[in-house]
Amino acid sequence: MNGAQLLVKTAKKAGIELCFANVGTTELPIVLALDSESGMRAILGLFEGVCTGAADGYGRMRGKPAMTLLHLGPGLANGIANLHNARRAKTPLVNLIGEHATWHRAADPPLAADIEALAGTVSGWQKTNQSPAALSCDMAEAITASMYGQIATLIVPNNYQWEECTVSEIATPQFSFAPIDRRSIEEAARIMQSSKKAGLIIGGRALRKRGLHAGAHIKAMTQCDVLTTTFPSYIERGTGLLDVKQIPYFPEPAIDMLSRYETVVLAGAKEPVTFFGYSGIPSRLLTDKAQRVEIATDRQDVVEALEYLAGTVGATLDSTIPSNILTEPARPDMPQGDLTAEKVCLTLAAIQPENAIIVDEGLTTSLTYYPLTAGLPPHAFLTVAGGSIGYGMPCAIGAALACPEQPVINLQADGSAMYTIQALWTQAREALDITTLICSNRSYQILKVELAHAGITSIGSNTLSLIELDRPPIDWVKIAEGMGVPAVAVRTAEELAKELRKALADPGPHLIELALAQSSN
Amino acid sequence: MNGAQLLVKTAKKAGIELCFANVGTTELPIVLALDSESGMRAILGLFEGVCTGAADGYGRMRGKPAMTLLHLGPGLANGIANLHNARRAKTPLVNLIGEHATWHRAADPPLAADIEALAGTVSGWQKTNQSPAALSCDMAEAITASMYGQIATLIVPNNYQWEECTVSEIATPQFSFAPIDRRSIEEAARIMQSSKKAGLIIGGRALRKRGLHAGAHIKAMTQCDVLTTTFPSYIERGTGLLDVKQIPYFPEPAIDMLSRYETVVLAGAKEPVTFFGYSGIPSRLLTDKAQRVEIATDRQDVVEALEYLAGTVGATLDSTIPSNILTEPARPDMPQGDLTAEKVCLTLAAIQPENAIIVDEGLTTSLTYYPLTAGLPPHAFLTVAGGSIGYGMPCAIGAALACPEQPVINLQADGSAMYTIQALWTQAREALDITTLICSNRSYQILKVELAHAGITSIGSNTLSLIELDRPPIDWVKIAEGMGVPAVAVRTAEELAKELRKALADPGPHLIELALAQSSN
Repeated sequence: MNGAQLLVKTAKKAGIELCFANVGTTELPIVLALDSESGMRAILGLFEGVCTGAADGYGRMRGKPAMTLLHLGPGLANGIANLHNARRAKTPLVNLIGEHATWHRAADPPLAADIEALAGTVSGWQKTNQSPAALSCDMAEAITASMYGQIATLIVPNNYQWEECTVSEIATPQFSFAPIDRRSIEEAARIMQSSKKAGLIIGGRALRKRGLHAGAHIKAMTQCDVLTTTFPSYIERGTGLLDVKQIPYFPEPAIDMLSRYETVVLAGAKEPVTFFGYSGIPSRLLTDKAQRVEIATDRQDVVEALEYLAGTVGATLDSTIPSNILTEPARPDMPQGDLTAEKVCLTLAAIQPENAIIVDEGLTTSLTYYPLTAGLPPHAFLTVAGGSIGYGMPCAIGAALACPEQPVINLQADGSAMYTIQALWTQAREALDITTLICSNRSYQILKVELAHAGITSIGSNTLSLIELDRPPIDWVKIAEGMGVPAVAVRTAEELAKELRKALADPGPHLIELALAQSSN
Repeated sequence: MNGAQLLVKTAKKAGIELCFANVGTTELPIVLALDSESGMRAILGLFEGVCTGAADGYGRMRGKPAMTLLHLGPGLANGIANLHNARRAKTPLVNLIGEHATWHRAADPPLAADIEALAGTVSGWQKTNQSPAALSCDMAEAITASMYGQIATLIVPNNYQWEECTVSEIATPQFSFAPIDRRSIEEAARIMQSSKKAGLIIGGRALRKRGLHAGAHIKAMTQCDVLTTTFPSYIERGTGLLDVKQIPYFPEPAIDMLSRYETVVLAGAKEPVTFFGYSGIPSRLLTDKAQRVEIATDRQDVVEALEYLAGTVGATLDSTIPSNILTEPARPDMPQGDLTAEKVCLTLAAIQPENAIIVDEGLTTSLTYYPLTAGLPPHAFLTVAGGSIGYGMPCAIGAALACPEQPVINLQADGSAMYTIQALWTQAREALDITTLICSNRSYQILKVELAHAGITSIGSNTLSLIELDRPPIDWVKIAEGMGVPAVAVRTAEELAKELRKALADPGPHLIELALAQSSN
């Protein structure tokens, strides 16, 4: 057995079945090993950002890692933007990078680069493998590290992939959460109960059913508000679940929302801060006098911590939650006429089916979507956790592969879509059930909003040329068809409704270009 | 004046007129400053790899830097692959990155990342600006550093861009080469003259007319061979110039070629090494007993060094070079019938006009092109210097903007084209005179070649799925049209000839999809 086969065998034994890859010569032994291990599936992305974004989407949905396989420093660099999102989303992800043969590094060949420095910017764990025989332990260690909700990068020299080795045992990941800190949770409970108004900000795994259930009990017992950050990585949402409020993007409404809390309890979420630094506005959105309490670290099980908190404030988890705490069914009416950002959101909310996975990178177009969705049939909602654009289309790939029985709908801004447009090809190759709604406002609309926010009204030609995408207009239908995805353009809410229903009824990928007025958000 | 205006004023005064950009909120003051300084032009790329590749192409053609403007760590990461190529090409390039406001960093907002670590992997010089008033000196220093043929990265905190400052003077770059080392060049001359056979490997600025002229004189006096590396950054080539031989990609023929030299003189080129490490093959292509002499460092003027070497071996630079040293006019005949890789190269060589700029990322398709071109009308030839794919289309943008009077022809592999496919949109927006020839063999053919080279003949389904791009086939005509570039597909040499002539006669961008048999290189 060579090192590559040992690595792949270890991954397979640990339950990894997908490898999102774009490879070169330095990864070929691992590629060949994917074929020598049954049940391993390689998914090609035509750009590494597609691979890493897909691995992010898979990890978010499954809560367990997929692996990537990327070519040297430049291949890793191409994947970093979406690894950045995965890092912020706390997605379990094993990131494999091929490296030149150890004895070849000193020659500084053309493709040599400082892979470790690149990997260090996104990895919670990283290692450069030192021998073929160590590849089993290294891989198991990487998988273990990823399970804490981080990127584990293993750099594997080419010669250690191809060299033969004898190993008696295939290592298995040893993952377990650290015990929760009961005393500090009890202290959090005491503070919540003695506060006039408490906010409970939840994130990560706490946004899944069990965490939401515990959150609902805590809310019922303490009258706290339950919130999440502007860009949650993954949240289960809809009828019968707790309606978790989203903290707004811009600082003024966010500060206004958060100013009411004497106490803020953080469970799987960081203290909220502004997305950018704005002159005269503090970075931290909580008032100085608000008490902050974190009830779980990344090494602890945030769901267990929340359940313990629920018990401590007096809830019985298997008792019925008061009906006013959970959402009731509610769908907006179908809008009519020419599409605006608001009508896009209304139409989607009026139509999306139960169990849909909504991958939202609509940015300014999808601003009004989330509040519409608390009473929809239960569904999953994913956002661009780290703010690095180009996550939506690749993430949809990973989500569709992770949950093939659930339809994926990607609400997608046009400027961001262009970043990883190659993803459409993988959607076509794998015949994934993804409907992409391209919000074509032909601009980086968020920058117009930021300029207006900064009070800048007079915009020169260079600035315009960096913000507007209308010269030439992008023909999304042609681009999608060019990559094998059937596509259609719509101008009205009625057309969108019709085409969205058609796309959802027909398995496989579809793209719908939504022609929005350019002044529309 | 604010810091951003000071920075832009310094760039303009130093002769920088183009800014290849994709920006976010943290760069907006610099964007606004581009409008307050007349003669500054912003070029939008719909992905940062387009911006950095275009800046590389511009710098290679002009020998002076353009600047980029990228958004935070993820924006820089997206640009790194083409910065890697620029680094290997020794392109002068000023790379500007916006950073969060200094006081906002501690909040670790979603888009925060270790920009310095990312920049360190590609930059020969880098600095994080420490005050608005320092932005003039910092920018001048960056420009100076870039002029030595390296990437100079300046990271500029958002608040230092918008804060007002008073500066009495706009700094100017202080660039000058270090003196050449005459004694070591004289020693090189002595060794060359006493060797049975010497090779002179030239690169960088030595591949321009003046360097080639000196090289021709040296060849005439010493009977040395003049060579360049497999992937030269920029070479002037054609009738009346010295025919510089390319060292082959694969190690066996390269070792064979280089084994004949007792002495190898390096002028602006590194000692040749294999592209990857292959089992049983040394990294270094020169034999152990070959003497190596470098006659210029990156801080010295390699052309001056070559001219001094020419004088030292007895040449008079303004004397006539013997006619057998320089190439005579020679064009291949037009081939006929279904396109193969060889016929693509022959057709292009049969047609390309004088002063064409050939941006070659044809990889396996263009293997036979270079040897055909020594006798063509003078033209420029650029390659993927660092081996990081996705350089061709962006590089063509920069070359076309640098030399608007010269037609640009991009011989482009399909798999590589997909990496930075967004470049077509910028070509359309700027109405650039670029003809892209997509070599559509629907595979990462180079990997098939590498597998065959490694003796692997039995290929499993995962391996195939990572190498072949035929399911679904990519419709390049639709993708190009979707981004505003007129396009056509051809199957035969005759059709290619007709469409290439048409495209060259019509200003503005065009794309021609060359349908190659998949087994064709």
